[in-house]
Amino acid sequence: MDALAQALILLDYAAVAVFGASGALAAARRKHDIVTFAFFAAITGVGGGTLRDLLIGAPVFWVHRPAYLAVTLAAAVAVWIFGWGQGRERFLTWLDAVGMAAYAVVGALKALSLGAPPLSAIVMGVLTSTFGGIIRDVLGEEPSVLLKRELYVTAALVGASAFVGLNMLGVGLMASGLAAVALGFATRAGAILFHWSLPAFPGRAPPP
Amino acid sequence: MDALAQALILLDYAAVAVFGASGALAAARRKHDIVTFAFFAAITGVGGGTLRDLLIGAPVFWVHRPAYLAVTLAAAVAVWIFGWGQGRERFLTWLDAVGMAAYAVVGALKALSLGAPPLSAIVMGVLTSTFGGIIRDVLGEEPSVLLKRELYVTAALVGASAFVGLNMLGVGLMASGLAAVALGFATRAGAILFHWSLPAFPGRAPPP
Amino acid sequence: MDALAQALILLDYAAVAVFGASGALAAARRKHDIVTFAFFAAITGVGGGTLRDLLIGAPVFWVHRPAYLAVTLAAAVAVWIFGWGQGRERFLTWLDAVGMAAYAVVGALKALSLGAPPLSAIVMGVLTSTFGGIIRDVLGEEPSVLLKRELYVTAALVGASAFVGLNMLGVGLMASGLAAVALGFATRAGAILFHWSLPAFPGRAPPP
Repeated sequence: MDALAQALILLDYAAVAVFGASGALAAARRKHDIVTFAFFAAITGVGGGTLRDLLIGAPVFWVHRPAYLAVTLAAAVAVWIFGWGQGRERFLTWLDAVGMAAYAVVGALKALSLGAPPLSAIVMGVLTSTFGGIIRDVLGEEPSVLLKRELYVTAALVGASAFVGLNMLGVGLMASGLAAVALGFATRAGAILFHWSLPAFPGRAPPP
Repeated sequence: MDALAQALILLDYAAVAVFGASGALAAARRKHDIVTFAFFAAITGVGGGTLRDLLIGAPVFWVHRPAYLAVTLAAAVAVWIFGWGQGRERFLTWLDAVGMAAYAVVGALKALSLGAPPLSAIVMGVLTSTFGGIIRDVLGEEPSVLLKRELYVTAALVGASAFVGLNMLGVGLMASGLAAVALGFATRAGAILFHWSLPAFPGRAPPP
Repeated sequence: MDALAQALILLDYAAVAVFGASGALAAARRKHDIVTFAFFAAITGVGGGTLRDLLIGAPVFWVHRPAYLAVTLAAAVAVWIFGWGQGRERFLTWLDAVGMAAYAVVGALKALSLGAPPLSAIVMGVLTSTFGGIIRDVLGEEPSVLLKRELYVTAALVGASAFVGLNMLGVGLMASGLAAVALGFATRAGAILFHWSLPAFPGRAPPP
């Protein structure tokens, strides 16, 4: 359990850093200044977990642990300094996949540990891992990750559901956590590598 | 009072289902997959009440009662299966009018019962009944219901104000609730049937 | 201290009024009705402080003090009546600069007084003074203040950082508050008058 707790904390900081970097890259795309870099990095890095904490009534995780904000600032500075390149794009896409898979499980675990029922815990996992990116896209006026056909929310859903499901079946935290991160990551990897997607709505759509 | 409480709970679930369906329809419009349907249904269905609960410091209503989330999922599946049609559009518009009128009163009642002053309770009623749709439009990148000239926020305001006003005048909960839902609904019905609107700002506008 | 507390409360109401007016002007730009004026005025006027209070776990400041909402309504009515004019635009820009500078300090002070660490208090100051405008732009579908190159978030950051920094150095509340408001205002004034800006990201940007 101690090792798990430590692994979770590491994953948590890693996910904040990765999402922070993706926020800074949104700022880079529009040639912004360093303060806007930091603003986007912070909002993207801690946004999902912030919503989760507000919804479950927990103290917002970063307010009394400024190391989280410091990590997003470091991510903003790193993106500023190292800039961008094709190799880095692929690196970040994969890092984001790891962060997303980790966050879906961390979010669901925190909700479960505060007594949320299974369905709510799954929703918290999904929100934790996707909401930072959603705010980043809305504020940056970019096409939302929500509106892309590629699996993203679905991968978070797979990971969070697997974790909560295995947990209900009595599988230990460590095993269900690892299996769920792996499943969520594999789903996202399939989306990145093989463009996996779910069938689109086949019915008649309302006029726009 | 018992009958009122039960009626309120029914109205509450009905409003969540209706708003959930309107979220799923926003996803249908863009030919999304079932997960995105569910995501939009959930956010639209519970978004307004979530904001209200956060603002008045109450536990967020759906977190420990997953039936609400289940209702939004059912709405998403129903939209997926039954698709869309002209008759259904009118049906949903009217269902949405009922949901909006109900939610404006439910939201104001919850705020009053937690000790909020009248003006704040009115604002909570308006937010509860309109914020889900606002988030749906922002995330779905559709023209916001806020920016249409048709009366929508105004109908919520009429309902919530009537409820709080009648309540302050000493009218019983049941009577003021029914009258307020009727007034809010009638305002919205006038907007749908007769395109009622308030006068636009007549002054000089600042340049865009 | 008493004079300071009174000055802070005055600044608080003044900032709510100014931000409320800027929300109403966003509605004026699109020729909306008076209810939409009021909606935008309220959201812009109290939005930043609301987010701050949710994040630090304080009761949301306006819920039990409806005078704040009344001030935003008055601002909406004032904009409706007095309309717009070139002279007024400049007046409002400068009023907004005062409000922003005041709010950055008020926000940071409230966070500090509730035990937030320095870095978090600075972030709260920045959010308090900028988030209302950000929501206004997102809901009004206008180019976000975040995406302009002109210093705005930076001015809030200068003010909040100066206040927290002076405070940590042992400077009294009154002196550090006044100095910080002056610094934040001066930064914004430089942006307005001389188009001050920070260097843009010099690196290669990712493709859009």
